[in-house]
Amino acid sequence: MSKRLPDRNTEFSRWYTQVVNQACLADYGPVKGTMVIRPYGFQLWDNIKETFDKMIKNTGHVNAYFPLFIPKSFLAREAEHVEGFAKECAVVTHTRLKADEDHGVVVDPESKLEEEIIVRPTSETVIWSMYKKWIQSYRDLPILINQWANVVRWEMRTRLFLRTSEFLWQEGHTAHATAAEAQQETMDILELYRQLADDYLAIPVITGLKTESEKFAGADKTYCIEAMMGDKRALQAGTSHNLGQNFAKAFDVTFQTKDNQEEWVWATSWGISTRLVGAVILTHGDEKGLRLPPKIAPVQVIVIPISKDDQQTAEVKAYLNPIIAALERSGVRVQVDWTDNSPGFKFNEWEMKGVPLRMEAGPRDVQQGNVVLARRDTGEKQVLAKNEAVEKTPYLLENIQQGLFDQALKFREENTHNIESYDEFKKVIKKGGFVRCGWDGTEKTETRVKEETKATIRCIPFDENPSGLTCVFSGQPAKHEVIYAKAY
Amino acid sequence: MSKRLPDRNTEFSRWYTQVVNQACLADYGPVKGTMVIRPYGFQLWDNIKETFDKMIKNTGHVNAYFPLFIPKSFLAREAEHVEGFAKECAVVTHTRLKADEDHGVVVDPESKLEEEIIVRPTSETVIWSMYKKWIQSYRDLPILINQWANVVRWEMRTRLFLRTSEFLWQEGHTAHATAAEAQQETMDILELYRQLADDYLAIPVITGLKTESEKFAGADKTYCIEAMMGDKRALQAGTSHNLGQNFAKAFDVTFQTKDNQEEWVWATSWGISTRLVGAVILTHGDEKGLRLPPKIAPVQVIVIPISKDDQQTAEVKAYLNPIIAALERSGVRVQVDWTDNSPGFKFNEWEMKGVPLRMEAGPRDVQQGNVVLARRDTGEKQVLAKNEAVEKTPYLLENIQQGLFDQALKFREENTHNIESYDEFKKVIKKGGFVRCGWDGTEKTETRVKEETKATIRCIPFDENPSGLTCVFSGQPAKHEVIYAKAY
Repeated sequence: MSKRLPDRNTEFSRWYTQVVNQACLADYGPVKGTMVIRPYGFQLWDNIKETFDKMIKNTGHVNAYFPLFIPKSFLAREAEHVEGFAKECAVVTHTRLKADEDHGVVVDPESKLEEEIIVRPTSETVIWSMYKKWIQSYRDLPILINQWANVVRWEMRTRLFLRTSEFLWQEGHTAHATAAEAQQETMDILELYRQLADDYLAIPVITGLKTESEKFAGADKTYCIEAMMGDKRALQAGTSHNLGQNFAKAFDVTFQTKDNQEEWVWATSWGISTRLVGAVILTHGDEKGLRLPPKIAPVQVIVIPISKDDQQTAEVKAYLNPIIAALERSGVRVQVDWTDNSPGFKFNEWEMKGVPLRMEAGPRDVQQGNVVLARRDTGEKQVLAKNEAVEKTPYLLENIQQGLFDQALKFREENTHNIESYDEFKKVIKKGGFVRCGWDGTEKTETRVKEETKATIRCIPFDENPSGLTCVFSGQPAKHEVIYAKAY
Repeated sequence: MSKRLPDRNTEFSRWYTQVVNQACLADYGPVKGTMVIRPYGFQLWDNIKETFDKMIKNTGHVNAYFPLFIPKSFLAREAEHVEGFAKECAVVTHTRLKADEDHGVVVDPESKLEEEIIVRPTSETVIWSMYKKWIQSYRDLPILINQWANVVRWEMRTRLFLRTSEFLWQEGHTAHATAAEAQQETMDILELYRQLADDYLAIPVITGLKTESEKFAGADKTYCIEAMMGDKRALQAGTSHNLGQNFAKAFDVTFQTKDNQEEWVWATSWGISTRLVGAVILTHGDEKGLRLPPKIAPVQVIVIPISKDDQQTAEVKAYLNPIIAALERSGVRVQVDWTDNSPGFKFNEWEMKGVPLRMEAGPRDVQQGNVVLARRDTGEKQVLAKNEAVEKTPYLLENIQQGLFDQALKFREENTHNIESYDEFKKVIKKGGFVRCGWDGTEKTETRVKEETKATIRCIPFDENPSGLTCVFSGQPAKHEVIYAKAY
């Protein structure tokens, strides 16, 4: 079943596609660019979802659901917003099919809609049209609503999890009485995204501000978490937007302040998506396939019984059952592979699927009261007494979680370069990696650098230190220290 | 805020609309017939969802996600299926907008798709196109996949939760090696639906088989759970379909049997939706608003502190905090209303929202070590020592759960009539209620009865006893004993 993977060093893109396929994570759907998330991939996404859902509920947010369909005219109300999304909108124009003698089933022309409908690419417009109904006074604020939903952005060049015409995400949409409160919310959420990436996905991220040209269509400010993938390219893993009063103005949403004034409402929005599954693969995968951080792995320990005949199988099963029960009691997600595939086949399959720990036991282990534990991250194997193995498992899982993070952080640091000359800049970008350098703050520089090197400013990191720097491109005094990279 | 409700006995439909609105459950979206599920309504749906999700996972099912978009040609492959859904399909025809000087933002005609895309009304076709890729041998079976998703069925006459153009649901799609196994799955799921309705929603349901004319478009057999609402009309609350080999044939999905034969795969599909939220309202609501079954209520106990000044508020708060903590420790979902609304206002609001138990405490209760507990289902109030109240709460919640079920069952039984003459039949149907009677098994009878009385056969109940019965309409010997009613 699992074929050999393409070389990760020379054919990273083909390697990625094969891992997604062989680990049974996802598949393309029949309509171009759509994605089928298979059970194993969906469980991974669901674990990420549940983790973040708890985080936002603990901070006072609630879930709701807004419609998939948006009137075309709504999208057009915020000028930058419609410009940002116009070129990738799925448009519904009819509502019926009918039988046609010559052409089979056709769209019924009589069912044409008066106003075309957009399948949501994001929900600011439909949500702010509702907030207009719900918000009258400062007493109605803040509104801290999130939704888990599917959205559609028509894409020509697609890649499973990273860029698909439909994807799953959460989109938070909050409404506030003051600018300061909206800014605080924007930053609080960014911090939750950082925690999710660092502490659960084991992906070290850089937090910072997007430049004007890279910000969300309709936002005042966009903040992001940016990560380095295994091929040294950047991936934007989550964004948090301070929308100012832009959508309140577009949808005429005002409120009465405590002092009886009328004011526009302040807004934020923020999202993470199934793209994070792609980020996990691209960050931690190796020549054998996936490597999953234990905290989000659907299966944390895969047990492989080894036996030559039915009697041995029965013995090994009797031996393993209490061990498995003990692991379950300590909250470990454990699964046994009882299929009749060979042990070697099973090892490959579960390595491909990235299960953090493998436990093996055969007749000799039964006799000696042992099991073998093999770590997916390092390949390290150890023979342990069964009780010791059970006790040690949670610590090993923590250790693997930390190990994956440390390895990714080391990789990012090794491939991040402080650079002052444009020649050197071009060399590094060509070779791959992050460049930290000065930027004169102009869109012109951004555009030229992008045209010449395909690198974009990933963010102005919060820990920037522009004093004394010059712009790597123009030689002018730097307005900001920024991070450039080629990105997904 | 909460206005008086319309009379439930004479204006049931307006009553329903007002409850949905005043309990902040849902709202209409900007595109006609779409629904916004507000946080309180969404939490209710989420509790139903989580309950059922556990049930299907415990029985070996897994979740996945399939695309929203289906090629038009796919829908057409199964003849009955396309006939069933053709008249209510949202059709995507274009993928871009563009600016137009005269008309603002318009659909870009150059982005017209070669083949139109259907927004899924249900996912059999897209899923079976994938199963074709995934199924080769009996070893690949069974596949027990479910998805939680949004679907679109264009509706002209809509009603929040009960009939909207977009709704949320789960759709299970399973693939099996034998007809017997598919039939078993169909029945197993129906039993889970019955448990969900009876044991969690406190809605007593009748289980049975749909007639040929009422079955799912593309199924061999459709089984259902049917419930009686507060206005004595029927509501189909869930359906489980044995699809036979229809979709396997339409998508050419065969497998190699153990004996090396090639055979079409056997299929089931099954679904419940946000309609269940409507069923809960319609079954348990009363003149004061919602009454929620404790097992699915977002808030099980609402605490209303009563005080006249800041000092009293502080005392009551100090008194209540450990009580609330104790309730939370015993797993009760408890919330305190600290707003500055009057107690009377709060009572009304939380009664409207259907919270099963209200706990009140004022300065005198603090002095005496008591709290007041008021049941939403019966209105009964009792004064209890605080520790006793904490201990008793879980039992009271169980009692309310059972009480709601018993009341609904009694109501259904009182309004179900065994009838032999068509005159009597018409009288009962006009007055409202379920009729149990003989049916000659012909579609002609079904059609005529529907035309004359608007009643449909809700199901052939599993406990039917047709022997000796005659058809209430034709007078012919009954083939089945059935349940007729006007339905949502």
